[in-house]
Amino acid sequence: MTTVKVVCHRHYEDENEWSCGNWLEYTLVIVLATILLLGSLGLTLFWVINYHGGFAWQEDPKKQFNLHPVLMVAGFITFSGFSILLYRICRCCRRIYVKLLHTIFHALAIPCVALGFLAVLDSHNLANPPIANFYSLHSWIGLVTMGLFAIQFVFGFFSFLILLCCEGATAGFRSAMVPIHASFGLTTFMLAIAACVTGLTEKVMFKLGEDYSHWKEEGIVVNVLGAILIAAGILVSFAVRSPTLKGDARLSVTERL
Amino acid sequence: MTTVKVVCHRHYEDENEWSCGNWLEYTLVIVLATILLLGSLGLTLFWVINYHGGFAWQEDPKKQFNLHPVLMVAGFITFSGFSILLYRICRCCRRIYVKLLHTIFHALAIPCVALGFLAVLDSHNLANPPIANFYSLHSWIGLVTMGLFAIQFVFGFFSFLILLCCEGATAGFRSAMVPIHASFGLTTFMLAIAACVTGLTEKVMFKLGEDYSHWKEEGIVVNVLGAILIAAGILVSFAVRSPTLKGDARLSVTERL
Ligand code: HEM
Ligand code: HEM
Repeated sequence: MTTVKVVCHRHYEDENEWSCGNWLEYTLVIVLATILLLGSLGLTLFWVINYHGGFAWQEDPKKQFNLHPVLMVAGFITFSGFSILLYRICRCCRRIYVKLLHTIFHALAIPCVALGFLAVLDSHNLANPPIANFYSLHSWIGLVTMGLFAIQFVFGFFSFLILLCCEGATAGFRSAMVPIHASFGLTTFMLAIAACVTGLTEKVMFKLGEDYSHWKEEGIVVNVLGAILIAAGILVSFAVRSPTLKGDARLSVTERL
Repeated sequence: MTTVKVVCHRHYEDENEWSCGNWLEYTLVIVLATILLLGSLGLTLFWVINYHGGFAWQEDPKKQFNLHPVLMVAGFITFSGFSILLYRICRCCRRIYVKLLHTIFHALAIPCVALGFLAVLDSHNLANPPIANFYSLHSWIGLVTMGLFAIQFVFGFFSFLILLCCEGATAGFRSAMVPIHASFGLTTFMLAIAACVTGLTEKVMFKLGEDYSHWKEEGIVVNVLGAILIAAGILVSFAVRSPTLKGDARLSVTERL
């Protein structure tokens, strides 16, 4: 196997070579991503406030639970989704800025995920009587998602930012890591979606049970939320893989600065 | 954007250039795929027979339902999974045979899916009182999955087999369709996994409810089944995307015969 390594500087004028179709694809991805990623967060908020009585902290573990879906969707879907898409969306700023923004967005996801996890742990442990932890398929998927996310963050931070200290020497390593980081990142995103749809199903079954089949308003809200999350998963994986949008992504690690 | 089109014949000796690592990857994918794809079907059978009393047809709609998970897993996971992997697994037979096998495996999935769908429809409509249809997030995901599957099958059959009648004239079209067919195929497979994990969660909540948190044996079986299905999803998407395993996949439509 031979690997062709492209080390060259980007010509900003290349942008102009994009055809009309490429721009259409680009615009569609941005518009749809905004609708789906912000829409899922908005609908989760609406669902939790409207049908589950809003939020609380440890004084009311039942309402504390409500923070869980909201913060998990915020961290794993909205922030992470935009963070992944940044590499496809930002076409005219320097790569190092995109990289930093990518790091910042994912860093913002950390407190969301940590608090969202704490919220569900508390809602189990402070319940009377306490509820067991990690018994469900949803919680297993969730744990793996969080584990992968942590590995990705630490590894990515180290490989793509810290190793910039000795740029030349690490360029080969860094560019070899890019596809691995990207695949694991997409896998983590997909697992997050799987965690969300199983979590939603579990919650709606706890609340509605047999009534789910009576086309209750809440059931439909939850289904639409699930559908939006699935659509977001399809959009992000499409955008990440699109040859048009990918363009010069390979250069990201080799560009100086 | 320029597209480089590779039209050449495959040298079977190229195989020998594979390094030890490539063979390891290849063997691992085959072994793991066999374990996960057959394992998920086996475990679904075990679960349904052991905890839900086995099968029946319309004389007992409750047991008729049990055919649903088994046939859906058989069609959408086991048959479709192997069918997708065929292109990565068969490295020494002619492409046209692989293509035919791919079609046959997917064609075998059709009766499974059709009967599996009928089983759940009957189990709702023949229940006393009847249960509504298509109310759940699971059923929405399932419907989209079946729709995409049908489109993929018809479109693929037409594009990659029927159009072979005038090979030369359609080569460009066919090779342009390959990446689209592959992306949609992988999306369908992922949606099938999402349908399975939401379906499992729903079923286990119907059956166990609050008891799910008491670490019942059945709950653990369902979780392990879900975990196997997720692992199968990761493995298949990894194998499909692996540059090593992909090798000459691009040639598949251009090779004569
Ligand atoms: C990527 C997003 C998510 C992750 C990583 C995640 C992770 C987890 C984890 C690890 C647990 C186990 C906590 C324990 O057992 O003490 C849990 C519980 C729970 N989650 Fe999530 N979750 C996510 C999204 C959601 C969403 C969107 C909902 C929708 C309501 C939800 C509903 C639940 C419910 C009902 C529980 C308690 C029952 C159980 O343990 O399964 N989750 N989650
Ligand atoms: C790719 C695989 C699957 C597909 C495409 C699929 C599709 C569907 C569809 C379309 C329905 C709606 C039928 C109706 O409302 O009359 C349904 C119902 C159902 N399925 Fe599946 N299914 C799949 C796998 C599974 C699995 C593995 C389970 C595990 C037990 C399952 C459990 C259920 C349950 C409990 C229902 C009835 C409640 C409901 O409508 O949500 N399904 N499925």
